[in-house]
Amino acid sequence: MTTSPSTTAPVFRNHQHFLEEFPKTGPDTLAGKMLRHYWHPVCLSADLRDVPYPVRMLGEDLVAFRGLDGKVGLVDQRCAHRCASLVYGQITKDGLKCSYHGWTFDSRGRCTDMPLEPLNSPAMQRVKQVWYPTQEWAGIVWTYMGEEKDTPPPLPKLDILTRTDGEIVIERGDIRPYNYLNFIENFADMGHIYVMHMLEPGKVPLELEPYVNHTVDTNWRTMEHRTFETDFGMKCVLVHNTADANLKYVNSWSIVPPGVYRFGGIHAGLPPDFTNDRRESGGILRIIDDTHFEMFRFQLIRPGNFRTTYYPVPTDKTRGVAKGMQGTVEKKDYDTRKYPAWEGLPQVEDYVLQESQGGIPPRHREHLATSDIGIALLRRLWRRGMEAVAEGSKPKLPKTDDHGIVHVDTFKGLAHPDEIKLSPENMPSSEDGRGLIRDEHGELIFGKS
Amino acid sequence: MTTSPSTTAPVFRNHQHFLEEFPKTGPDTLAGKMLRHYWHPVCLSADLRDVPYPVRMLGEDLVAFRGLDGKVGLVDQRCAHRCASLVYGQITKDGLKCSYHGWTFDSRGRCTDMPLEPLNSPAMQRVKQVWYPTQEWAGIVWTYMGEEKDTPPPLPKLDILTRTDGEIVIERGDIRPYNYLNFIENFADMGHIYVMHMLEPGKVPLELEPYVNHTVDTNWRTMEHRTFETDFGMKCVLVHNTADANLKYVNSWSIVPPGVYRFGGIHAGLPPDFTNDRRESGGILRIIDDTHFEMFRFQLIRPGNFRTTYYPVPTDKTRGVAKGMQGTVEKKDYDTRKYPAWEGLPQVEDYVLQESQGGIPPRHREHLATSDIGIALLRRLWRRGMEAVAEGSKPKLPKTDDHGIVHVDTFKGLAHPDEIKLSPENMPSSEDGRGLIRDEHGELIFGKS
Amino acid sequence: MTTSPSTTAPVFRNHQHFLEEFPKTGPDTLAGKMLRHYWHPVCLSADLRDVPYPVRMLGEDLVAFRGLDGKVGLVDQRCAHRCASLVYGQITKDGLKCSYHGWTFDSRGRCTDMPLEPLNSPAMQRVKQVWYPTQEWAGIVWTYMGEEKDTPPPLPKLDILTRTDGEIVIERGDIRPYNYLNFIENFADMGHIYVMHMLEPGKVPLELEPYVNHTVDTNWRTMEHRTFETDFGMKCVLVHNTADANLKYVNSWSIVPPGVYRFGGIHAGLPPDFTNDRRESGGILRIIDDTHFEMFRFQLIRPGNFRTTYYPVPTDKTRGVAKGMQGTVEKKDYDTRKYPAWEGLPQVEDYVLQESQGGIPPRHREHLATSDIGIALLRRLWRRGMEAVAEGSKPKLPKTDDHGIVHVDTFKGLAHPDEIKLSPENMPSSEDGRGLIRDEHGELIFGKS
Repeated sequence: MTTSPSTTAPVFRNHQHFLEEFPKTGPDTLAGKMLRHYWHPVCLSADLRDVPYPVRMLGEDLVAFRGLDGKVGLVDQRCAHRCASLVYGQITKDGLKCSYHGWTFDSRGRCTDMPLEPLNSPAMQRVKQVWYPTQEWAGIVWTYMGEEKDTPPPLPKLDILTRTDGEIVIERGDIRPYNYLNFIENFADMGHIYVMHMLEPGKVPLELEPYVNHTVDTNWRTMEHRTFETDFGMKCVLVHNTADANLKYVNSWSIVPPGVYRFGGIHAGLPPDFTNDRRESGGILRIIDDTHFEMFRFQLIRPGNFRTTYYPVPTDKTRGVAKGMQGTVEKKDYDTRKYPAWEGLPQVEDYVLQESQGGIPPRHREHLATSDIGIALLRRLWRRGMEAVAEGSKPKLPKTDDHGIVHVDTFKGLAHPDEIKLSPENMPSSEDGRGLIRDEHGELIFGKS
Repeated sequence: MTTSPSTTAPVFRNHQHFLEEFPKTGPDTLAGKMLRHYWHPVCLSADLRDVPYPVRMLGEDLVAFRGLDGKVGLVDQRCAHRCASLVYGQITKDGLKCSYHGWTFDSRGRCTDMPLEPLNSPAMQRVKQVWYPTQEWAGIVWTYMGEEKDTPPPLPKLDILTRTDGEIVIERGDIRPYNYLNFIENFADMGHIYVMHMLEPGKVPLELEPYVNHTVDTNWRTMEHRTFETDFGMKCVLVHNTADANLKYVNSWSIVPPGVYRFGGIHAGLPPDFTNDRRESGGILRIIDDTHFEMFRFQLIRPGNFRTTYYPVPTDKTRGVAKGMQGTVEKKDYDTRKYPAWEGLPQVEDYVLQESQGGIPPRHREHLATSDIGIALLRRLWRRGMEAVAEGSKPKLPKTDDHGIVHVDTFKGLAHPDEIKLSPENMPSSEDGRGLIRDEHGELIFGKS
Repeated sequence: MTTSPSTTAPVFRNHQHFLEEFPKTGPDTLAGKMLRHYWHPVCLSADLRDVPYPVRMLGEDLVAFRGLDGKVGLVDQRCAHRCASLVYGQITKDGLKCSYHGWTFDSRGRCTDMPLEPLNSPAMQRVKQVWYPTQEWAGIVWTYMGEEKDTPPPLPKLDILTRTDGEIVIERGDIRPYNYLNFIENFADMGHIYVMHMLEPGKVPLELEPYVNHTVDTNWRTMEHRTFETDFGMKCVLVHNTADANLKYVNSWSIVPPGVYRFGGIHAGLPPDFTNDRRESGGILRIIDDTHFEMFRFQLIRPGNFRTTYYPVPTDKTRGVAKGMQGTVEKKDYDTRKYPAWEGLPQVEDYVLQESQGGIPPRHREHLATSDIGIALLRRLWRRGMEAVAEGSKPKLPKTDDHGIVHVDTFKGLAHPDEIKLSPENMPSSEDGRGLIRDEHGELIFGKS
C-alpha cells in the first residue's frame, strides 16, 4: 500500500489501456513485473543433462544447466564478457564456462574463473552474470524471476503433483505461437465447450457407453453458470440438470494464476460422466514471450482409469503445430484454410481457435456478453494484480496449507442440491478429483466422507 | 464539388507526395478510399462451396461464404465477439456461425444467433460484423467496399464477359508479390513490347506462318504512339507502317480503372496478325494489399481460334511463383539470379521485370521520358480520382450503356488511314475484337459493317 | 585537417555512441563512409561470364557484369528509368541494357542507348546510373565506392597474392549472417585460441607428430601478449616459452583494415609447429551489409605442404550455414541447441561463437578485460578513422612499397630472444610466412638471411 493512493494518477487511463498492457510479459512492462512475482516452470529435471539447455522465459533469453555438483543454474544466455552465447558453454565444476574466453559463472551469476586474466583479477568480483534462482520439485525445474530473487517466496506446490494414489504423467514440448492469455482465457470460458467442442463430438468408446449418463441436460440455457474468486485463484462452475430433479451434474474448472489450469478428469471436457475415467488433469504454461508459450500437461492416472485416453504419442502428430492439422472431419481438396478439417478433437479445436484470435488479439474490437463472466473475472484479477504492482505491493499469491500445498477445486460429478457449494470454497471430494460419484440410481459410490 | 475549393490546401504537397500515396490500398489511405468506389472481384462463384473461403481484399482480411440459401456473404474474418477467426466458422441457414461461441452473422453483418446468451438478448441488435455487399455475375463474385455499401452503384459489366459468340475461359490463382500498379503501369506502357518481348520471341507455330504479315514495321521510331482518356478509362494506341503506304497496322491496349486490362486477342502481344487467332484477351486484378494481387484472366475463344495458345496448364509451372521460373533461354549453372533463364515467354518476362521493380517501386528515383506517355496519363487519372475523393466527390466511373455494359476499345488489325480513329472513340469492329481484318492483298475479311 | 577542430563538437558523444556507430556499413553512416575509403572485393574474375552478377556491397544492391569488350562494370541494380532490375539486363557492346525498355549503361554509368526515345534524345545526357570503378587483380574484382570514385587511390596489393613460390588458392562463397566486425574482432583476439580452440583439439595427423614441439608452453599466463599499430594496420603477437630458455615460440596475427586478416600458415591456428605445414593463410571479407559478409579465403601452398589440410570441399558441408553443423564431438539426441556437437574444428568454433554474439552484438553489455587489448586497439583504429572522416579527412590507408604491395607481418615460429622484434616492424622472414624455422635442436632451417 502506498501512503497516499488518493493523489496518485490511476494506473490505467481506461479499460482499453489495461487491455493493451494485460498480455505483455517483458521485464519492462507492468504485466511482466506482475508475472515475475510468481514461480514459473522452466523445463523438466530430466531435460538437464550434460549440455546447456537454451530457454526463453518471459521474453528473456536464458540458459539452464545442471552443474557437475547436480545443482541447477539459470543465467542470461549472453556472456557478460563479449556477448557470446553461454548456450555453447561448457559445464564445469565451477558452473557454466563460456567457450569463447572461459569466463565461468555459478548458479548465482558469480564469476568463478577468468582463465585469460591474471589470477585473482579484480574483474572477477566486478562482473556479475544475470541469474535467477531455481528449485526442482515434482520432476520440474522452477524459477523465480522477480526483484526479490535473493529471498524468493516459497514455491507453491500443486496438490495434484503431490498425490501418491496413481501415476503422475507430465508431458511438455507443445509450443504455441500465441499469447498465453489466449489459452488461459479459453479456460475461464466454459461456454465454448457447449458450442465448439460439440461440433463433431468424438464417439464414446463402446466400452464406456454403459457409464454415460444420457440424462444430463447439455442445453446451456438451462445450466447455472457461476464464477468465483478463490484463495488459489479463480474457478468457473456449471450446474447441469438431470432427469432426476434431485440430482445435479456439477463441473468446475479452476485457474491458479498466472499459468496453472485444472479440471476434473475427463477425456473430452464434456459430460457424460465416465465413472472409471476419473483421471485428474491440468497443466501449467511456460510463458516464453508475448506470443509464445509451452504447455506442461499433467495427469494423475489411477487404477481403473483408461490408459488409452491420456494424450498418446500419435496425438502429437494430429495436434498443434503442423499445417494440415486434422480432426475427425474429412479434408476437402478445395478447403484453402490453414487448418482444413480441424473439427473433432477438443485439443485441436482449442488450438485452432486460440491461434486464430491472433498472436495478441486486438481486444479493443471485442464485444463481451453475459456468458463471458469467466473472462471478466480473470481480467479483474489480473488488473488488480497489475495495479498492486504499480503501487509497489504484490499481486495476490495462491494460498497454501502448512505443507506449502495449493488445494484446487476440481469437482466434477453428480450431487444432490444440498451438497453443492456455489461459493469460493472447494467442493467435498474435490481433492481426489472424483466429485461425488453416483451410479445410475443415485447411489453414492465415491466421495463418502 | 466542394463549395470553396480555392481555399483548400492542395491534396498533394508535390508530385513526390502523390507518387508515395498512389500505390496504397488500405482503408485509411486516400488511394485506398478511391479504390473503394469501384467493384472488385473476390473469387469465382465456383470457389464458394461448403467451407468458408478466406480472402484478403485491399488490405482487409475477410471471409467469403455461400450460405445454405445460396446467397454469398463477405464479412470481416475476425468475429466481433472475441476476435476468433470466422474462417473456421460453420455455414448455417442463418449465415456464418463462429465455431468458438456460435455467434452467427448473415451476409449483411447482422447477428442472427448467440446461443450462449439469453434468448432475444439485446446484444444481438448491438453487435454488427463488418460486411460488404456482393454480387455474382459472369461466374465471378464481386464486392463493393466503399462507404456507400448499403446502396452501391451498379456493377459495370465488361463487354467481353457478356459475349456469346465463343467460349469464355476464366482463370485465377496467379498471386503476385508486388503492387498491382506495377502490372497496370506495365499495361499502359506499349514500348516495353518492342524491347522486352522481342528479346527472344517465341517462334510462330508453323501452321500460323501463312497468316503472318512480315511487312509490318516493328521499328518503334517509325510508329505513331498515342494515348487517350476514354469514357471507360484509357487506351494506348500504336499505328505501324506496312509495306503498303495505304495500309496501317493498329494495336490498342485499354485499361478500365482500377484493375481491368484488355487487348486484342493474340498470343504474344506482338504483331504479326494471325487471322485465325483473334481471341479476345484481358483480365482483372484482385487487389490483395499494397504488395500482392491476384490475376483473373479471361479469354473469348471463338470457332477457328487456336485452342492450344490460351494459357495452358503446363504454363502454370513455368510461370509465376517458383524460383527457377524458366523461359526459352537455357539455364546456365553459374547464373546466380533469382530467375535464371527467364527470357522467352511474355508472361514470364512481365512477371520478372514487374517484380524486380520492388513490392512498391521507389518512384522518386525514376526518370520518365517521351515513351512513357501511357504511364503519365494513367497517373493523371489516378491523381484526379484521388483528388476528387479528397474533396468529397467520386472518381470517374466507367461509362456503361443501357444494359450496364462497358465497351472497351481493343482494335487490333490492318486499316486504311481514313478508317483509323485516333481519338477517345472506339474503333469500328472493336466490339468483336477482330479489328478490320484484311488478307494479304488488303481485302477486307472481317469488320464490314 | 579542418582549420578549427578545437571548436568542433566531438564526433562521438561518448564511447557508447561510438560502439553503436562502429559496426554500421551503409552509405549514410559514418562508419560506412569510412569503409568507402578502401577498396573492397566484389567477386572472382571467373564469376563474371555472360549473365549479370547481382551483388550487395556495404548495404547497396549492385550488379556486376563483364561487357563484351571484357571490361567489368558495377552499377546500381535499379535502372534509373523505372526501377526495374538490371540483374535481368542484357550484356551488349555498349554496356548493360535494361531488358524492360532498353536503356543501356556503360561501366561509368553513362547512358549509351534509349531505343524507345528519339535519336540523340537529351535524356541520354541527363540520366546517369549509379556506378563504381572496378579493378581486376589477382583473380579478384575489386571496387572503390568512395566519393573520389573518379580518381580512386591505387588498389593496395596484398603481398601473399603476389607470391610465385607456390600455388595460390582462393575460395569464396561462405556467407555469414552477422556483422563483419564479429569476425575481425575475433581475429584481433588471440586469447580465444587458448580457450575455445583447445576445447577438443583435433588430433594431429600421425605423420605430423614427429614435427610437433611438445615443449612449447601453451599456458596463457606465462606468455607475453602484445599488440601493435603497424603501417599496414595492426598486429597481435604472442611469445611462448619453450623448454629451452633461449628459444621462444612467436605467433603473429595481422589485420589490414577493414577486412583483411593474415596469419602464419597452420591448419588450426595453434601450436605446435608443423615444419612441413607452412602454408600462408588469410582472407578478406566482402562486407555485404550490417549483418552479412562473405569470406574470400586465400592460401599459398608450397612444395612440401600438406595439401589435404587446406579447406577441402567436404568441409563446406560441416562448416557454416546448416543447422546441425558438426564438429568432432558426438551429437546427442537431447541436445536442443541450434548447433549441437559444434566443438572440434576451429572454423566451426569461430563461426558458432561469432554468430552467437548476435547480428550486431549489444556491445553496451560487454565487460572488456586485460586480455582484450587486441579488441581495444582495433576499436581505437576504427574510431580514429571515423573521426578523421567526420572531420573531412581520410582514415589511415595501408602503406605500400614502390610496387604498390602491402607487406604484412605473419611471423610464426621459434626465435632466440635477441631476434624477436616486439615492435610495429615486421619480423625477419615474415615475408615468406615461415618464421625462423628451427629443428628440434634449435638449428635454423629457414629464415637465414
